[in-house]
Amino acid sequence: MKILGIDPGTRNCGYAVIEKNGREIKLLEAGLVKIKTKILQEQIVEMCEGLEIIFKKYDLDEVAIEDMFYAFNPKTVIKLAQFRGAISLKVLQEFGHFSEYTPLQVKQAVTGNGKAQKEQVAFMVKRLLGIKKEIKPLDITDAIAIALTHSQRIKG
Amino acid sequence: MKILGIDPGTRNCGYAVIEKNGREIKLLEAGLVKIKTKILQEQIVEMCEGLEIIFKKYDLDEVAIEDMFYAFNPKTVIKLAQFRGAISLKVLQEFGHFSEYTPLQVKQAVTGNGKAQKEQVAFMVKRLLGIKKEIKPLDITDAIAIALTHSQRIKG
Repeated sequence: MKILGIDPGTRNCGYAVIEKNGREIKLLEAGLVKIKTKILQEQIVEMCEGLEIIFKKYDLDEVAIEDMFYAFNPKTVIKLAQFRGAISLKVLQEFGHFSEYTPLQVKQAVTGNGKAQKEQVAFMVKRLLGIKKEIKPLDITDAIAIALTHSQRIKG
Repeated sequence: MKILGIDPGTRNCGYAVIEKNGREIKLLEAGLVKIKTKILQEQIVEMCEGLEIIFKKYDLDEVAIEDMFYAFNPKTVIKLAQFRGAISLKVLQEFGHFSEYTPLQVKQAVTGNGKAQKEQVAFMVKRLLGIKKEIKPLDITDAIAIALTHSQRIKG
């Protein structure tokens, strides 16, 4: 079972594809969709092009997207939320459905602590996947953590 | 020149198609895309289906969408912004580009007062289009006002 995790961000959007076979979990690919422009309409288009490549490359079984939290300034929230809404539509068009997890749920699932730091999440992600080398930046480990969270909720 | 105006709302999403010929402006159609569900993913799908019908029916020249403001509670803002982001992507996919106007710009353009009440906007919309009968609800007059604002900014 192949699971795509997405950590929506208007500068660097982390994504990760993991494969789950019973209790065995393997990282197939993780990276950033790099968003070059600062204009929201163009950011949405760049992001969708990146997603299309991932959807074509993998025969995905599940998609999970990190839900938003409210801690930014209002302008940032509105921009990010619009960006996330466009990602939602794109995933719905390409895939039909997706699951959502709040940052708290992701941290809880991966580290056992809903208030864990990003570095702790990164540490546990590497441990759960048996990866020794550094994965950077943290947007990528976040995306892997989202996929891992979803993998714990489903059978297969 | 046919202009579509959209007033994004997750319950009732107002839309209006106006036709501009030099100084003459005619209302072709205005109404609501009725959103029945309360689940964001389904709201996005319902809205997109409504937009597809409008795009198929009219050979549009321009699309204008009302920009967001920050005055709600954070949960509402995030939900509406995601909904608006999905609309943006749908319009980009169907039409390639669109223009955005803040509520202040729309009120200023239609009534001459950026702080005008919705009722004043509705009054001026009817006057500018030479319509006597009531247009309700105000989401519809808002959508017409957005289309009118855009009609003032472009030639044709």
